[in-house]
Amino acid sequence: MARIVMKFGGTSMAGIERIRRVAQIVKQQSDAGHEVAVVVSAMAGDTDRLVNFCREASSLYDPAEYDVVVASGEQVTAGLLAVALQSLGAKARSWLGWQMPIRTIEAHSKARIDSIDAGALTAAMQSGEIAIIPGFQGLSDEGRVTTLGRGGSDTSAVAIAAAVKADRCDIYTDVDGVYTTDPRIVTRAQKLNKVTFEEMLELASVGAKVLQTRSVGLAMKEGVRIQVLSSFTDENTNWTADDLPGTMIVSEDEMEIEDMERKLITGIAHDKNEAKITLTRVPDKPGAVADIFAPLADAAINVDMIIQNVGREKGETDVTFTVPSVDLDRAMQVLEGAQAKIGFNRLIPDTNVAKISVVGVGMKSHAGIASTMFRALADRGVNIQAITTSEIKVSVLIEEDYTELALRVLHTAYGLDAVDAA
Amino acid sequence: MARIVMKFGGTSMAGIERIRRVAQIVKQQSDAGHEVAVVVSAMAGDTDRLVNFCREASSLYDPAEYDVVVASGEQVTAGLLAVALQSLGAKARSWLGWQMPIRTIEAHSKARIDSIDAGALTAAMQSGEIAIIPGFQGLSDEGRVTTLGRGGSDTSAVAIAAAVKADRCDIYTDVDGVYTTDPRIVTRAQKLNKVTFEEMLELASVGAKVLQTRSVGLAMKEGVRIQVLSSFTDENTNWTADDLPGTMIVSEDEMEIEDMERKLITGIAHDKNEAKITLTRVPDKPGAVADIFAPLADAAINVDMIIQNVGREKGETDVTFTVPSVDLDRAMQVLEGAQAKIGFNRLIPDTNVAKISVVGVGMKSHAGIASTMFRALADRGVNIQAITTSEIKVSVLIEEDYTELALRVLHTAYGLDAVDAA
Repeated sequence: MARIVMKFGGTSMAGIERIRRVAQIVKQQSDAGHEVAVVVSAMAGDTDRLVNFCREASSLYDPAEYDVVVASGEQVTAGLLAVALQSLGAKARSWLGWQMPIRTIEAHSKARIDSIDAGALTAAMQSGEIAIIPGFQGLSDEGRVTTLGRGGSDTSAVAIAAAVKADRCDIYTDVDGVYTTDPRIVTRAQKLNKVTFEEMLELASVGAKVLQTRSVGLAMKEGVRIQVLSSFTDENTNWTADDLPGTMIVSEDEMEIEDMERKLITGIAHDKNEAKITLTRVPDKPGAVADIFAPLADAAINVDMIIQNVGREKGETDVTFTVPSVDLDRAMQVLEGAQAKIGFNRLIPDTNVAKISVVGVGMKSHAGIASTMFRALADRGVNIQAITTSEIKVSVLIEEDYTELALRVLHTAYGLDAVDAA
Repeated sequence: MARIVMKFGGTSMAGIERIRRVAQIVKQQSDAGHEVAVVVSAMAGDTDRLVNFCREASSLYDPAEYDVVVASGEQVTAGLLAVALQSLGAKARSWLGWQMPIRTIEAHSKARIDSIDAGALTAAMQSGEIAIIPGFQGLSDEGRVTTLGRGGSDTSAVAIAAAVKADRCDIYTDVDGVYTTDPRIVTRAQKLNKVTFEEMLELASVGAKVLQTRSVGLAMKEGVRIQVLSSFTDENTNWTADDLPGTMIVSEDEMEIEDMERKLITGIAHDKNEAKITLTRVPDKPGAVADIFAPLADAAINVDMIIQNVGREKGETDVTFTVPSVDLDRAMQVLEGAQAKIGFNRLIPDTNVAKISVVGVGMKSHAGIASTMFRALADRGVNIQAITTSEIKVSVLIEEDYTELALRVLHTAYGLDAVDAA
């Protein structure tokens, strides 16, 4: 007997047939004797429809009224799932954000959960009633509807799991777990049984889009064990806590030694949403780099990888760095405006780059990981343009056209290939 | 300077362009210095979409969850109208049913408004902020979402008007007022400047579908002056309280003497949604009529007009009455089941009937009104099958095919024809 929070995304809630299917999955957990709360997203496409209404009504819409409009999508699916569960003979009721309430702070349309009064909710769960909670929504100090920003339902689910002290937060998506790399690119990719929060954060932030990054951070802070699994495969509808079908995201403490030592690398992520900027012939003097990055920071543009090369002329250097692709145009404008102060010669943008990151808490020596990486990529003619490391990650920047090749080569080089796959 | 509640129905809110148009109408009243609250329906068709979701999810849906689902339609339009008003430079915010709150009693999906805490709302209106309230929704004693039943937004508007002590409740529809009869049938129909609550109730309940009957009853009880007008004609967007463009629905006290005495009859309504049932050769003995109507009352079937004819045989009689068409099949089943007890010979249903009602608080003598009616209809070969009267109404049942003819004949006979119309 466990206490479980289950979360279903928009594709799982897209239409009455799918909501019925979700009701069956939920009821099986309840029938197994577990105390169950369910967090739901709006029907796929519904939030977009509502957001577009707001945009059409006014290009400068009031975020407080935007929240009133878009929060309705999850209200609808919460009520419908309760109805579908009742029609299966289960006890169920919806709990809207303002009913618990889920108290939030900070700005409308991007609120953060501050506290959840989960007393009544927990009592209902203990009495055998399934609690259905619309994700994404909360209540402000002023008693108004708030929303958490797109993808916020994952965060709602983790916060509810923390508030009710759930044994597990099961996040149902359209993939059946977290893989060693993107299985659409690397057919030998393997589903992972366990990853740590830290690994998941690195994998999520560099492009393995399974969970909202914020929700993983919250789970790590609150110690909420997450399982990622699919609502679209039969194997996920009938199983026991001893034989979980998805990928568990847990703290490093919970990783057994054999998990940790089995492989140096847990997974390999790729991210094509970075762009590279090179400034040529920057004066090679103290303060020059600050002149470049201060105006970018002022414009809230996030700079990731940085390389400084010695230029052709003495006393000059080339500086290269990456920014998110969406910020490239703004970054170029900011730097052009600062050309006199920085004193560079040319500004060269390049969107034809990809970042490949190998991630693993078992990583002991960056040097060893990096040397394997360089050798494997060089053997196949892939040139490394930049490199960065963190505690559990080594990332390289390469030409975008080599992304798939690099993923396959590295997946094999780090021993991640499934034995029985094609 | 007045305090006004404005109510807009689903066709007025159907899409962003129309919501913008509504925002303009509302802003003109606010700019004129009035304190304004606005009650909105869901976009036309949206409530049907949400109701169908519930029905698809379960044929026996939980009314509490139904309310959660369908109340979302008005939440969306309330937020969008607030955004549209803000984009015109007005101060505006939405007030959801649970935020005021609008407290309701009785069953989910057909709740009744018990009380409204309008203190904060009134203060906001006094500060020049336009208050937008989703119609149709409220809050139960248990803190859950309730709805008032289809068409409930009219009732919401009247209740809000009573709570904030509004000078007037303007109900915007797709017609520009209340007419002496259906102007689609009688081209000489005239728009009325004033009708009494009692007249409006009779006109509404016999098929002049401008306002929900319940809202008129509430307005009468609370003394809320209602104006019915159109959101689709330009004349209704710019006018003063001295020159109201629509039809005012007021108490009899407010009717001036000249209004009352000008005409005996205020309007003529028709209703094709009745069906006639005749039981032949019912024993003509005490208790026979009770045997017929008791089982119908038990089945909650409303019986309207009743006629008893002496039958062919001595000691027997034919009994004819009307029921709502939607209840005809059930009524037939109930009576067939009671045949032994009642002792009739045949049961004859007839849906080819219409009820024509002439209504007017100025009506002094039913006899005079009825005699004009009989003569006018007989002159054109229209046979009267049944007749009923109330304090301010005389109704006759005729063959449905004569409906339009009868309306035109009576409209002329009671002197209601417009002089300048075609």
